[in-house]
Amino acid sequence: MTDSIEQASGDMADRIARVALNQLAEPGNRLIWSLVQQDGAPAALQQLLSGDVPDQALMASVRGRTNQFDPRRFAEASLRRAERLDVRLVVPSDEEWPEQVNDLATLETGAPGSVHHNMRPPLCLWVRGFPPLHKTLQRSVAVTGSRGATPYGLQTTTDIAYGLAQQGWTVVSGGAFGAEAAAHRAALAAEGRTVAVLACGMDRPYPAGNSALFDQIIDSGGLLVSEWPLGSEPLRHRFFLRNRVVAAATAGTVVTEAIIRSGAIQTMKLALGLRRIAMAVPGPVTSQMSTGCHEMLRTHPDAVLVTGLSHVLEAINGGAEPDIPAQDGRDRLDDESAKVLRAMTSNSVSTPEGLAVLTELPLRIVLRRLSLLELAGLVKRRDDGVTRTARPE
Amino acid sequence: MTDSIEQASGDMADRIARVALNQLAEPGNRLIWSLVQQDGAPAALQQLLSGDVPDQALMASVRGRTNQFDPRRFAEASLRRAERLDVRLVVPSDEEWPEQVNDLATLETGAPGSVHHNMRPPLCLWVRGFPPLHKTLQRSVAVTGSRGATPYGLQTTTDIAYGLAQQGWTVVSGGAFGAEAAAHRAALAAEGRTVAVLACGMDRPYPAGNSALFDQIIDSGGLLVSEWPLGSEPLRHRFFLRNRVVAAATAGTVVTEAIIRSGAIQTMKLALGLRRIAMAVPGPVTSQMSTGCHEMLRTHPDAVLVTGLSHVLEAINGGAEPDIPAQDGRDRLDDESAKVLRAMTSNSVSTPEGLAVLTELPLRIVLRRLSLLELAGLVKRRDDGVTRTARPE
Repeated sequence: MTDSIEQASGDMADRIARVALNQLAEPGNRLIWSLVQQDGAPAALQQLLSGDVPDQALMASVRGRTNQFDPRRFAEASLRRAERLDVRLVVPSDEEWPEQVNDLATLETGAPGSVHHNMRPPLCLWVRGFPPLHKTLQRSVAVTGSRGATPYGLQTTTDIAYGLAQQGWTVVSGGAFGAEAAAHRAALAAEGRTVAVLACGMDRPYPAGNSALFDQIIDSGGLLVSEWPLGSEPLRHRFFLRNRVVAAATAGTVVTEAIIRSGAIQTMKLALGLRRIAMAVPGPVTSQMSTGCHEMLRTHPDAVLVTGLSHVLEAINGGAEPDIPAQDGRDRLDDESAKVLRAMTSNSVSTPEGLAVLTELPLRIVLRRLSLLELAGLVKRRDDGVTRTARPE
Repeated sequence: MTDSIEQASGDMADRIARVALNQLAEPGNRLIWSLVQQDGAPAALQQLLSGDVPDQALMASVRGRTNQFDPRRFAEASLRRAERLDVRLVVPSDEEWPEQVNDLATLETGAPGSVHHNMRPPLCLWVRGFPPLHKTLQRSVAVTGSRGATPYGLQTTTDIAYGLAQQGWTVVSGGAFGAEAAAHRAALAAEGRTVAVLACGMDRPYPAGNSALFDQIIDSGGLLVSEWPLGSEPLRHRFFLRNRVVAAATAGTVVTEAIIRSGAIQTMKLALGLRRIAMAVPGPVTSQMSTGCHEMLRTHPDAVLVTGLSHVLEAINGGAEPDIPAQDGRDRLDDESAKVLRAMTSNSVSTPEGLAVLTELPLRIVLRRLSLLELAGLVKRRDDGVTRTARPE
């Protein structure tokens, strides 16, 4: 796993510049992304700060922001604060960068000034949680839908997300109430992996009412991901920007229930634009909540009608039968969890403190890993400590 | 309007031969249809009766039947009996033949021996009801669905059929319980036109429980249509043969609710094969009754998802806005109804007996026409007779 602060110092300037650039303009900015691709993030930042950029609107916005803070200092402070809260920064040069989000560079987008114009790949991603981001997203499907999902929509969401998680697919969603929370919860119930991609800082996850759910996601070996540093507010336009990461990070997007003008349908359209599998669940034509799904199926020949898990699996496996080896929890353990597990001997009781010494990991990391191992059924908690379960090695 | 018995005698041999041929083999027979196309119906009949046909299975079946009855006599008796019951025979040379059913000749069908092999156009159609068949079917849509339709399916069926009828489209269906009866009833409620295509003789319409509905269809200016003469039983395989006429006679087929293996889905597939508009209404994925619709939408790229009337109209109008002149009942009056109407003077009371004398039409025809005119709002019934309504000429 990668920890930004422990990187070689050569990378540090790149990391700081990426965080700073994200603070000078909202993520996805087309011009900034081009500058970074061309000259690297530190040079791009320098160009912006010196006013040497041929985009007056962008420069005005940058000047407005640099009057309020020093972007490099802001970035350094963000990274320090993130470390204290177990949040790490992942950048494209890191092993755990999910390469597929770079496909956003291929997205046909709207004219300058339109909301679709600035949909370039992320410069960096903040991540909270233990497993490496790229592996977690390698076999992932977005399951999304309305905040106001009906019982019908919640049922189909739960069925599909549960089944996907059981089959070893990571369920990605946006952490909202309604369908998205149902998707995360179903993945948790299946003891599978789930990732919430947020539109704000992870210290103030939105909606606050789902805070316990977000903690559960981390404890179960899932991840929280955001383009915005700690402290960032969930501004309205950020949800749309966030949706491009959901669509790009996953093999496909399933919309279970949504009205036409909704974030879930936006994500589905982005998935289509990225040549991902875009799936929609039909519903009663008498239900307002299915109008978006029906409209997408009517107007987009590539949109796939799915009535349940088997159709989703068929679509994301390219029509073939799912080809997933039966795996137990160990197959997807991150290095630190494996270290903790190895430090425990069968049939004897370990204490977290003792394991911290043996593994040379911080106690709080050991405690988190133990939660994960317990959820994976590999460790059992007792009054006097923890033991490995009886499963054969 | 055409009455088979009153045709020139030259046509009579053709009519008799067509009825006889339909009795020697089930309608749609590929070889018989080819013979009729090539040499005409009387010669084709002669060929079959003389055993001069290179299809042993067909000849064995023909011999089995000719042992039981003389096909020409059967046909003559059928025509006489039909006349007594106000049922007429319509053949391709008649003005009211619906030319579009001949498109069945273009249908790609299955191998010899398969149920899809014998799907050629009808040789003749028995018709009960007043308006000419071709005009009634000119702007028509099939609305079909399950006998066991749910309340949801009945609602969408009713909404779509009512709206189509209101917009001047004839609603064609098969007269079964459930969705099909709902389609006919909705068209009647809209004071529109509806046609039931039956798989049996019209003197024993199936299901018997819908007999009152069939009478209502006639009384409202609709039609009953069948390929089988009076007395024919609704044998199982006949429903499938019947469905090809429903698909071919109409501009498109809407399936509101159906399981995968159902007659409604067969009709939809035939509509696709005939390059008609094939439409399906989605429903809850939790409902068995929508599985056929969903499967068609998943597997047939040309199948159109419709959530209601506006989508159906959009599809059958080729994407354009409906282009239907506002019409009152008179625009679609058949000749005899127009005759009856002309025989009535405004502001005076006529009796059916008096109108029969004036129009030289049989009393029972006058009574039927008066029912139609009353439903169209052109005639008002009083205790002492009938009057024309106050509408300007």
